[in-house]
Amino acid sequence: MKVSREKWTSNFSEWFDWVISEAEIYDYGRYPVKGSGVWMPYGFKIRQNVISLIRKLLDETGHEEILFPLLVPEELLKKETEHIKGFEKEVFWVTHGGEEKLETRFALRPTSEVAITLMESLWIKGYTQLPRKFYQIVSVFRYETKATRPMIRVRELSTFKEAHTVHETFEDASRQVDEAVEIYSKFFDLLGIPYLISKRPEWDKFAGAEYTIALDTIMPDGRALQIGTAHHLGQHFTKAMDYKIQRADGSLVHPHQTSYGISDRVIATVIAINGDDHGPVLTPVVAPIEGVVIPIPAKTPEDTEKVVQYAKEITSTLISSGIRAVLDSSNDRTPGEKYYVWELKGVPIRIEVGMRELSSGSVFLKRRDTLEGKTVKREDLVKEFKNLEDVLISDLRKRAWDVFRERVKRFENLDEVKKFLDNKGGIAEVPWCGSETCGLSIEEQVQGRVLGTPLKPESNGKCVVCGKPSANILRIAKTY
Amino acid sequence: MKVSREKWTSNFSEWFDWVISEAEIYDYGRYPVKGSGVWMPYGFKIRQNVISLIRKLLDETGHEEILFPLLVPEELLKKETEHIKGFEKEVFWVTHGGEEKLETRFALRPTSEVAITLMESLWIKGYTQLPRKFYQIVSVFRYETKATRPMIRVRELSTFKEAHTVHETFEDASRQVDEAVEIYSKFFDLLGIPYLISKRPEWDKFAGAEYTIALDTIMPDGRALQIGTAHHLGQHFTKAMDYKIQRADGSLVHPHQTSYGISDRVIATVIAINGDDHGPVLTPVVAPIEGVVIPIPAKTPEDTEKVVQYAKEITSTLISSGIRAVLDSSNDRTPGEKYYVWELKGVPIRIEVGMRELSSGSVFLKRRDTLEGKTVKREDLVKEFKNLEDVLISDLRKRAWDVFRERVKRFENLDEVKKFLDNKGGIAEVPWCGSETCGLSIEEQVQGRVLGTPLKPESNGKCVVCGKPSANILRIAKTY
Repeated sequence: MKVSREKWTSNFSEWFDWVISEAEIYDYGRYPVKGSGVWMPYGFKIRQNVISLIRKLLDETGHEEILFPLLVPEELLKKETEHIKGFEKEVFWVTHGGEEKLETRFALRPTSEVAITLMESLWIKGYTQLPRKFYQIVSVFRYETKATRPMIRVRELSTFKEAHTVHETFEDASRQVDEAVEIYSKFFDLLGIPYLISKRPEWDKFAGAEYTIALDTIMPDGRALQIGTAHHLGQHFTKAMDYKIQRADGSLVHPHQTSYGISDRVIATVIAINGDDHGPVLTPVVAPIEGVVIPIPAKTPEDTEKVVQYAKEITSTLISSGIRAVLDSSNDRTPGEKYYVWELKGVPIRIEVGMRELSSGSVFLKRRDTLEGKTVKREDLVKEFKNLEDVLISDLRKRAWDVFRERVKRFENLDEVKKFLDNKGGIAEVPWCGSETCGLSIEEQVQGRVLGTPLKPESNGKCVVCGKPSANILRIAKTY
Repeated sequence: MKVSREKWTSNFSEWFDWVISEAEIYDYGRYPVKGSGVWMPYGFKIRQNVISLIRKLLDETGHEEILFPLLVPEELLKKETEHIKGFEKEVFWVTHGGEEKLETRFALRPTSEVAITLMESLWIKGYTQLPRKFYQIVSVFRYETKATRPMIRVRELSTFKEAHTVHETFEDASRQVDEAVEIYSKFFDLLGIPYLISKRPEWDKFAGAEYTIALDTIMPDGRALQIGTAHHLGQHFTKAMDYKIQRADGSLVHPHQTSYGISDRVIATVIAINGDDHGPVLTPVVAPIEGVVIPIPAKTPEDTEKVVQYAKEITSTLISSGIRAVLDSSNDRTPGEKYYVWELKGVPIRIEVGMRELSSGSVFLKRRDTLEGKTVKREDLVKEFKNLEDVLISDLRKRAWDVFRERVKRFENLDEVKKFLDNKGGIAEVPWCGSETCGLSIEEQVQGRVLGTPLKPESNGKCVVCGKPSANILRIAKTY
């Protein structure tokens, strides 16, 4: 069977809306608050599996999970002027409790640097307690004025994993940013999501950061999507709040901090990164259902009953081996109708059993990605299923990276970049002198957004704007 | 060693504040928003273990986890007048986004009946889709005007597990309320929390419910604490929002609903229900650390090094058997100082190893509750540890229930009830005719709050107010 990827790539936005709605993942646009969606049971499980993965990676590296209140008093938020400047237009304000006007306004947390710094100053007094690494998984709120998009640009980011760390020195904090990038890289590798790591330009770093490192992927429509960021905060917040710790020599200094985050966008990417016109292909790593067993009706009701019984046994075998399998034995739908639903839900492996399989003691495994099938002996089921999963995980990752690599292209002049981006190409790389003027000029000329520079400078060629020898390459894309 | 329970019972409130702060469970009163606390890493883990337990019970009984937006538009909240009447004085309102005044005010969800009913009406159209059981674990907000208390009466309930179900008939919904009470009973049994199940009186049921069943426990200071409620909502919300489903005969009817919830209070109870003047005693079921291994320094540094090495091996043995164990080998504190800290944290079992244990190939296990110790052979460690845990779990549960039963007392006149409650006695039961007038009179005369009646009427005696034959007994207590 030929796999068509027409809608998925050409009408990606429509495809995505169709998938999350029809597959009952995320109900968007019907709940009467702009820019917020409802996680439905199937979507919630995808989300939960993604969260478990990042939790594990963070716990293993000494991060401690905490939970802060949602509300941030206005006065506290404003302690850090530069920071609030970056967010003030996007803050939702609580002004009333019951019929009373509150004495002070409360922000719905847009992010948590100031709140967490305040409590860190009470908890951590000296160098022996450092480094300390916290994280929380919460909703954050942004009063977005741009067009909202499900999971990708929302007013309530309902899956915001933010980490906050404290260190004695600038260098310690730098190493922490490196660790964060490493953790996120591992996380995306496990999920099979390709990415580029870029240092954001000065004019686009996080409000209140020394520097920002970001991980961007490319969606099927060629637009870049920021899926993770890590910020070196320096002493920015600790100075603004005059938070000091004691060093070994007894002196008091403002500690250094980092923060790093990922959001619902990772889940959007997991759903979008592999797919076709039948729907998404979820990696078995986070698929709520790894295998769906579908009995094929036989010619007589008696035989059909035997097939269903056989399908039940197959399902039990899978489940007792720790595989998330379900049996679809409903008799109000044809096998074809069932295939449609489970393909739409992105279940990575389908197990078909009919009279042929029953009489030969076998099962038929079908991959969701290529729609290729294979008959395996019943006694080899679990081994073969797990092998096929490994192949799928690796093929999906490879295919996603192949597509991604083809979409990152080097150019020497901006006309070509503009054409490339207008044609939904992906991410363009151009030689750049390093000046903000030239950077902003590039953005304007190609109508794209600068993602930043590689961490290791690549300096061949001449700046596409001023012609001076390039200090590095600059990455540009149409972004979400 | 004698275990003193003086502070725990006589100065419970002070004891509780001391424990949650000193044991680094929940930072309360320092974050500058009244009635909200910060879950610190150790407390977060207790919370997470409690949540895992209830998730498991709900998932096993066909409940599906979802996640709704925080904000509820004013118009939607007001669709259900009786409901909003119960909450309107307690709602926090978001009125501004950035510098703009919003067109409509948004409530921070006080509870989610209307929001969920709205989406159910889009998701569930006919009887074949019923019953359907959803739940979510979220923060809810109440602008409390009463004095707030950590975890017990807060403005942000950060651990609100609310379930919402839809049914074809009143009877189906009634059965669901029974299932909810059964699930909560099992949950509290697992946690070793004693409780009474009462039907709340008409004048104190949930706003918009046909009836409310509640589970109450008694805190060490004799006050009753509501730790779970289940509401039969009837067609209250579905009528208010004109949500109909199709029945088998093609007719359209308003479905029936239930909702039931538990909150941070369960975690407060887990911490408070077993304790002494050293701190709480956490049940091994949810203790973040089930066992702490403490090496006892020897006479020479060489011997101490050997002991520490031995302690490491013991810890590894426990961990590789799936026991949440930690080694406290820090050498800046004496064993006594370590005991203090880990007792305060409520770690149920302490493992001491010194030269004596090293040379005899044994370990010394000490129970947190009785502070009794026991030497066991190294090769029996895991078995003995698990046995001791089982004994502890069962003893803690039994002790809590013994104390609880003694605090639920039957009386025939209100003077004695008043004395009992004023003396921090617990829950009083009195014969009652069933009239609201007499019920309210009882509340007023004893300055307590009516909890309701047993599910099976117990009708001996005469109403303590009017002297008529009692239809049931009424439960009264000082409450939180």
